[in-house]
Amino acid sequence: MKSPRVVALAGGVGAARFLDGLARILPQEELFIVSNTGDDAEIHGLHISPDIDTVTYTLAGLADPQRGWGIRGDRFHCLEALARLGTETWFQLGDRDLATHLYRTERLRHGHTLANVTAEIRSALGVRAQVVPMSNDSVRTRVCTPSGELEFQTYFVKRRARDSVSGVRFAGAERANPAPGVLEAIAHAEAIILCPSNPFISIGPILAIPGIREALRQRRQRIAAISPIVGGRALKGPAARMMRGMRLTPSAAEVARQYADFVGVFVVDQIDSKESPCVDALGMRPVVTNTVMSGLRERKALARQVVRALEIET
Amino acid sequence: MKSPRVVALAGGVGAARFLDGLARILPQEELFIVSNTGDDAEIHGLHISPDIDTVTYTLAGLADPQRGWGIRGDRFHCLEALARLGTETWFQLGDRDLATHLYRTERLRHGHTLANVTAEIRSALGVRAQVVPMSNDSVRTRVCTPSGELEFQTYFVKRRARDSVSGVRFAGAERANPAPGVLEAIAHAEAIILCPSNPFISIGPILAIPGIREALRQRRQRIAAISPIVGGRALKGPAARMMRGMRLTPSAAEVARQYADFVGVFVVDQIDSKESPCVDALGMRPVVTNTVMSGLRERKALARQVVRALEIET
Repeated sequence: MKSPRVVALAGGVGAARFLDGLARILPQEELFIVSNTGDDAEIHGLHISPDIDTVTYTLAGLADPQRGWGIRGDRFHCLEALARLGTETWFQLGDRDLATHLYRTERLRHGHTLANVTAEIRSALGVRAQVVPMSNDSVRTRVCTPSGELEFQTYFVKRRARDSVSGVRFAGAERANPAPGVLEAIAHAEAIILCPSNPFISIGPILAIPGIREALRQRRQRIAAISPIVGGRALKGPAARMMRGMRLTPSAAEVARQYADFVGVFVVDQIDSKESPCVDALGMRPVVTNTVMSGLRERKALARQVVRALEIET
Repeated sequence: MKSPRVVALAGGVGAARFLDGLARILPQEELFIVSNTGDDAEIHGLHISPDIDTVTYTLAGLADPQRGWGIRGDRFHCLEALARLGTETWFQLGDRDLATHLYRTERLRHGHTLANVTAEIRSALGVRAQVVPMSNDSVRTRVCTPSGELEFQTYFVKRRARDSVSGVRFAGAERANPAPGVLEAIAHAEAIILCPSNPFISIGPILAIPGIREALRQRRQRIAAISPIVGGRALKGPAARMMRGMRLTPSAAEVARQYADFVGVFVVDQIDSKESPCVDALGMRPVVTNTVMSGLRERKALARQVVRALEIET
């Protein structure tokens, strides 16, 4: 396979929306998406990879546009029947969506790697971009809260991200290897983009895999990150609240600081233009643009800005 | 738990229809149904117990009245999505039905027995009759055909029972134990009924579990069987064709002969009344009645005839 031109590090819904724009600006085949698997979970005995699926469904044109996750128009008959059997059903699994988890679980059980199964699924759904888990090994994000350490989906879905978070850890990360091709793609890509995802629970697990952050540092001038914090708030999810829990200021500049060792270009929203000097002071080139992706037009416009800032030919 | 008054040995759709009638004649709590698990299968990584589910859904009032199997009004969105992922989908699994298989598979994986999981499911669905697998151990029916030995569901569903069958075997039966309570129920029940099920692939696997046939022989005068063959044809499924393949005459009398060592009362349809003398010659008491269960009225009438023949108080 020829080496991909652009690598993207991606979490869930925010990343998927950006990638939807990017995949319309660049040929999809040239995209190599490294997907967070820290929030993978086993639910009803099935291996769920929420971020991989959100990105895949979005690029396949199947995603539910309101929710961002799951499949458009999906029904929840199986989940209703599971509830009748007395099982916990706080994790929403649609009937069509279930097929993905059944397929993945069965293939993994037969010894296939998560990377191979992910490639099979995205191909079957017509996605031409490579969607690659950060690792074939199990890495599980755990969230430290006043109620103790929680599994990620318990924190995020069951308890609706309401606990205050004092830290996160990535169980298994220290022994995990990057999935095949990830380090090579980072080393050889024309450019690398950190999608507007939560730095702690979406990008953080990817950076925790030994070798990845080091590989990124070698490419600093070719790497852009888009702030997921706009005007002190997260566009999606608990990033801002989390930052406060960790005694960090929820701001674009603080996100920039987290990435300063390996990111060369930092994209902030126009309402945060006052943070440009802070970004600059971190040795990063600030790009100010509209980062709020209300619709397809905005997704494409943001992608175009990032591509231009990295001088990627389209 | 107080010992059940009536034990029924049951296959799938034919048995479920009869039991639906019986459960309206006798208090459901007094019924102990021993369910064939020889046609259990692992499909998409899920443990499927088709006969247990057919009986359970029917007694729960959830069964699809036309098909006999599955849940009324169920959709097949998950299956369609599995097909899109390139998997074989000849085994029809409805979206609501899937919940049963997910639940069962997950509980079995956590070390619960099939008997316990079956009890949980039937209770959750409001079924008061005890539905008990013939064994907690794996027994798999294999069918000998000119194309070689086939797994049961491959023969039955995928190849639509079109292969000619020269024999069946029950892999694992020789090492299997009857599920807890089965032998005791047989020993102490007021009466035992063999539902109108295929003698080779529905009742056969139950009889193949060491100890069951011997226990039944001790109760011969209290045991009735209903012929699944009416006028030389099976009311449902491949029994008649199978019998021809095994060089047996497809007749009620031939079914009676298979059971002669442990069944005391044999129920034949009125169109087979001429077979009464043969049944009698086998040392069994023939009962002639309408056995074709076109609707609820016929189901109840047949149940009433059998109950009366066994002198069970209602």
